[in-house]
Amino acid sequence: MVDINYYTEDIHGKHEYFELGNFELEMGVTLPNARLAYKTFGQLNQAKDNAILFPHMYSGTSHDMDKRFVGEGRPLDPTKYFIILPGQFGNGFSSSPTNTPPPFDRGFFPQVMIGDDVRAQHRLLTERFGIERLQLVLGWSMGAEQTYEWAVRHPDMVLRACPFAGTAKTTPHDWLFVKTHEDAIKADPAWNGGFYERQSDVHAGLHLHAEVWSVMGVTQRFYKEEAWRPVGYSSLEDFCDRYWDGWFLPMDPNNLLTMAWKWRHGDVTRHTNGDLAAALGRITAKTFVVPFSGDMFFPVEDHAYEQAMIPDSQLRVIESPWGHFTMFIDRDEDRQAIDSVIGELLATSVRVPAGAGTR
Amino acid sequence: MVDINYYTEDIHGKHEYFELGNFELEMGVTLPNARLAYKTFGQLNQAKDNAILFPHMYSGTSHDMDKRFVGEGRPLDPTKYFIILPGQFGNGFSSSPTNTPPPFDRGFFPQVMIGDDVRAQHRLLTERFGIERLQLVLGWSMGAEQTYEWAVRHPDMVLRACPFAGTAKTTPHDWLFVKTHEDAIKADPAWNGGFYERQSDVHAGLHLHAEVWSVMGVTQRFYKEEAWRPVGYSSLEDFCDRYWDGWFLPMDPNNLLTMAWKWRHGDVTRHTNGDLAAALGRITAKTFVVPFSGDMFFPVEDHAYEQAMIPDSQLRVIESPWGHFTMFIDRDEDRQAIDSVIGELLATSVRVPAGAGTR
Repeated sequence: MVDINYYTEDIHGKHEYFELGNFELEMGVTLPNARLAYKTFGQLNQAKDNAILFPHMYSGTSHDMDKRFVGEGRPLDPTKYFIILPGQFGNGFSSSPTNTPPPFDRGFFPQVMIGDDVRAQHRLLTERFGIERLQLVLGWSMGAEQTYEWAVRHPDMVLRACPFAGTAKTTPHDWLFVKTHEDAIKADPAWNGGFYERQSDVHAGLHLHAEVWSVMGVTQRFYKEEAWRPVGYSSLEDFCDRYWDGWFLPMDPNNLLTMAWKWRHGDVTRHTNGDLAAALGRITAKTFVVPFSGDMFFPVEDHAYEQAMIPDSQLRVIESPWGHFTMFIDRDEDRQAIDSVIGELLATSVRVPAGAGTR
Repeated sequence: MVDINYYTEDIHGKHEYFELGNFELEMGVTLPNARLAYKTFGQLNQAKDNAILFPHMYSGTSHDMDKRFVGEGRPLDPTKYFIILPGQFGNGFSSSPTNTPPPFDRGFFPQVMIGDDVRAQHRLLTERFGIERLQLVLGWSMGAEQTYEWAVRHPDMVLRACPFAGTAKTTPHDWLFVKTHEDAIKADPAWNGGFYERQSDVHAGLHLHAEVWSVMGVTQRFYKEEAWRPVGYSSLEDFCDRYWDGWFLPMDPNNLLTMAWKWRHGDVTRHTNGDLAAALGRITAKTFVVPFSGDMFFPVEDHAYEQAMIPDSQLRVIESPWGHFTMFIDRDEDRQAIDSVIGELLATSVRVPAGAGTR
């Protein structure tokens, strides 16, 4: 185990845990005593048909999404819906390099796929809650990868899907981008194959990783317009220090590497022998595909390409200088635009597959 | 001096040298026995009014441009023009960390500005050749920076200007991008403050630097379309190994760092107390500003922003999946599009400032 003060409930809020036992991962390794951390908001109704699933992005935890998007009067309203936010493997709460004992601790934590997250989440939903239908699955970035995996793998369960700034199959450019994250961390000799003493020893690698994010995370226009200024930063350097380094430096390198590798290998065509049209053609969910304009690693065109293969879908581009990080809703306009898309999708009537109750 | 086999005339062609003597740099250091490497093609006519200046980009030498763009029947035709290709400081031929003796060798080579390159080039043109007018100054990327510096600093000398994929004032996003290059190299402990034994010792840093280029150098679409395939690469990995690593790995880390720092600090507003409109308003050259669509660090909008401030200018966007690296003309279409822009600009009649002969 790694002594680290970042992955605490003080910072990330209270989690529940679902014990997965000996969990066989898609890459073949069985992870003993695997666990899925999650949070819930609201009450599951008697028909068990008011559930929403909201997996989270790279480097984050459920808290990063719940504190931004779950609230009374918002589309993700806990007085109406039962909202489940599962933690992805590697996030420091679900099974991760930082919380797994030998022989799978730290640098020996096994490779995890997006499909592993979704299989674990499926067990949580069905075994613990008896949920058979989800009103909505939504997620940003790696959360979008999980959303697509859900919609392709369990089309009978997902009535609506809302992937934000993410793809069903990782593009080659995105593959390179994420590989650069990994190599930036690994370039630090203090990383030591994952067997560092303290995460802060890998400061230089984490900083370089944050720096790559600073170049790609928001738009060129963002920096030109000094869009950091209205959100409380006094200079470009201040923004880089407190926003990018401030976000990434407290994190655990092995946890990040686990999520990065998983991100890079996201691919719904594992279910269809490499056929993307066949995989996306399986989706029956009413789907809003939501890119952010100027996103440098999930560009609008990559969303449009996939959206065209999803039967009941629409492309909803949100314009913002924040690019990929629009989802952090540091601007009111961004929050309103995202809420509006989620609200509209939830208000849309959908065909419920045979065997399920009507909404 | 560093033992390195890359900066040789076998690889980069024969250079001439102009001795600058004790050359005072803009940052205050005087570089003893500074020298400017250059190549020329064609003959300077008797009126000395057929000269074209073509400085080069980051990580390159003059040869990278002459072999691609200078040729009979091409717009840069040595039977018509006297074409001068100056090497920028840090390129391994002009004064550089690799060819400068102590106390300014390797990691102690001083910081050089774009203005230093242009001042050295101005001395070459006026002192060696007696040139007072340039039919055209053109350049790509850092070559565009030098082009702008020329057009702002010596408006009376530059009749036409053609900056490709570069800006007059480095944008904050570009600043971050280039800083990441530098930090990727410096993250390698073998870099050792610039005092490595052999450049190949810094393999890991150079590789990470190349990897950042792989993410940003071409477009997302380039990778999606596998645009590497028609130019002779068999896989994404093959392209990364032979194209990106193949390009950058033989280079000297300190030379790259010298050019990167210079790139990052490019700013024509040094002449006008920070006023960009005033600086660009000085330009009298007929100017074609040429961005490449999808360029991730010199986006079209950053060119349009500056072009609007240049009196006699046009924006000429060239579309290509190659993004920033369109200038390598690996596709015939790219060569044709670039030649066409240069040819059209050279064919345009221009007002010759008082005191100069007509063309």
